[in-house]
Amino acid sequence: MTHLPVPPPSARFLRACRRLPTDRTPVWFMRQAGRYMPEYRALREKYSLLDLCRDPHLAAQVTLQPVHALGVDAAILFADILLPLIPMGARLTFSAGEGPVIDNPVRSARDIRSLRPVTAEEDLGYVLRAVRLARGELPESVPLIGFAGAPFTLASYLVEGGSSRTFRRTKQLMYAEPRAWHSLMEKLSGVLIDYLSAQVTAGAQAIQLFDSWVGALSLDDYQTYVASHSAAVLAAVARSGVPAIHFGTGTSGLLEAMRDAGGDVIGVDWRIPLDRAWERLGPSVAIQGNLDPVALFAPRPELERQVRLVLQAANGRPGHIFNLGHGVLPETPVESVKAVVEMVHEISVREAA
Amino acid sequence: MTHLPVPPPSARFLRACRRLPTDRTPVWFMRQAGRYMPEYRALREKYSLLDLCRDPHLAAQVTLQPVHALGVDAAILFADILLPLIPMGARLTFSAGEGPVIDNPVRSARDIRSLRPVTAEEDLGYVLRAVRLARGELPESVPLIGFAGAPFTLASYLVEGGSSRTFRRTKQLMYAEPRAWHSLMEKLSGVLIDYLSAQVTAGAQAIQLFDSWVGALSLDDYQTYVASHSAAVLAAVARSGVPAIHFGTGTSGLLEAMRDAGGDVIGVDWRIPLDRAWERLGPSVAIQGNLDPVALFAPRPELERQVRLVLQAANGRPGHIFNLGHGVLPETPVESVKAVVEMVHEISVREAA
Repeated sequence: MTHLPVPPPSARFLRACRRLPTDRTPVWFMRQAGRYMPEYRALREKYSLLDLCRDPHLAAQVTLQPVHALGVDAAILFADILLPLIPMGARLTFSAGEGPVIDNPVRSARDIRSLRPVTAEEDLGYVLRAVRLARGELPESVPLIGFAGAPFTLASYLVEGGSSRTFRRTKQLMYAEPRAWHSLMEKLSGVLIDYLSAQVTAGAQAIQLFDSWVGALSLDDYQTYVASHSAAVLAAVARSGVPAIHFGTGTSGLLEAMRDAGGDVIGVDWRIPLDRAWERLGPSVAIQGNLDPVALFAPRPELERQVRLVLQAANGRPGHIFNLGHGVLPETPVESVKAVVEMVHEISVREAA
Repeated sequence: MTHLPVPPPSARFLRACRRLPTDRTPVWFMRQAGRYMPEYRALREKYSLLDLCRDPHLAAQVTLQPVHALGVDAAILFADILLPLIPMGARLTFSAGEGPVIDNPVRSARDIRSLRPVTAEEDLGYVLRAVRLARGELPESVPLIGFAGAPFTLASYLVEGGSSRTFRRTKQLMYAEPRAWHSLMEKLSGVLIDYLSAQVTAGAQAIQLFDSWVGALSLDDYQTYVASHSAAVLAAVARSGVPAIHFGTGTSGLLEAMRDAGGDVIGVDWRIPLDRAWERLGPSVAIQGNLDPVALFAPRPELERQVRLVLQAANGRPGHIFNLGHGVLPETPVESVKAVVEMVHEISVREAA
């Protein structure tokens, strides 16, 4: 449980994180700043993804784009979950179409020992400057969400050397060298605790921890190899005084364990009905989700039907933050994203809190 | 519910499909005939995957390999779920490393109309001959499982033109052209009903319906766009008098709906604990699963721990068929697969039925 140093701010999104009533359901989107937006594509013609992340002015500018274009209730810092791995020693590139590639993957206890210690101020200062700039330029009513990848998801990229369908090498390291695995997870957690605390100090008003690929694990593996490390990171966020969103995809089998690991808000995808997920999670947490990103490709009536289904499942209960179940896809029609913001706000209007 | 024309046969696997007590827990593996086996790799040096499928003698030979090498309690026909799409008009190839590619994907109502009608006897006779040959050569005590891809999973390959992470085009067709979608699903179901009935006539003693990718759907989408078509296929299998296994991955959100669509056995993956899945499914079905295929890469003590966890979750209840949660991975050590068969048989010994 978090202990707030100050009374909860009035922004819709932050109130919902604390399960307080709101005038409308707050809505934002994972990857709301991204390739589906013409403003973003224009910048990407001139700069690589890493260039954009590393230039605090550009990163802040991209962070603000969807706030102006869509009217969302929160901004999320423009950055990549893999950035902290670079100063740790990963040779990271983004290949067109194939996603991230790390050409010196971490496969052994020795590889893990040679990972470099990282401090956010020294090694990721450009991210913190982007947080300060974005926070300075955002309207007061729009909170800024900072974020990081969770230890498991980051470890999986380090070990696999990129994306994976089976996470074979990651699980193999867990099973065959549990001590090395835990030391990797501890290193990552240490970096993340410092990095996220620094984001909060720089002005982030909430933190999302992306454990995007944790749904690949059995409950037993999650509890044995992952939960305690996520818990350490989420406890540090709680100490920093801002709400934490604990997100994963395909997590129907892990919901209670993820809640127990921490987070004021649990992010779920469309693979579980929102009401069933919330029932299992119980009254102690808020919930974020869970429209299928592909619904944004549907004709308007079908899109609206699906938005209504999500809102009906939440049933006006305080503590629902509307979002997709995963990031906006690159080919998404921008008009559909805009339409969802309007739908959510119109459909969810209720008595002011 | 199925009405058996004959009393339940005595084989362990078939008894478990009917939730009858067995002397030991039956065990087989999805993709138990595959690249991890030296005997199979030797054949693949001379023949392509499609060559092996299309030669009934070779397909029967491959079907029997794991029965001899591993001592599994059931054989599954060596074939590919995409075979019925070829006579329907799909130009299917298997590219090394990238999996199946269909270079004339189905994207419109017109594409769907131009799919050709298929009858198993005329167009897939080579599969039926492989069933007859394999059944003739198998020991009487080892049942032969026939199979097919479920309508949704086959449709997803046809529409995407191969594998997919997001199933964007498949869902887009559902949402934008529901009549065309349903007509595609009806065409596929018609082909599957004929194909699976013919497999049973040829000697298959159980059928597994692989809806491998259905876990990508929300419950609402499953019920709206998929369930009735799977139900039609599973009802036809039930009429044929053999048990049906209804399998998918990532299906924690869909379990009850999949059970309601049909099947005597529900196949689940490791993303949900087996006991929790069975509790939700209730007493009317048997269950198959659910070791993580990557556990086969673990050192022996960890592998045994995970095998025990699955058996403990089943708790000796009649109707558990031990399997992985998905297919054996190509790099799997064959000794581990063999060891799991022995572990399952040793750990699960109990009073004879």
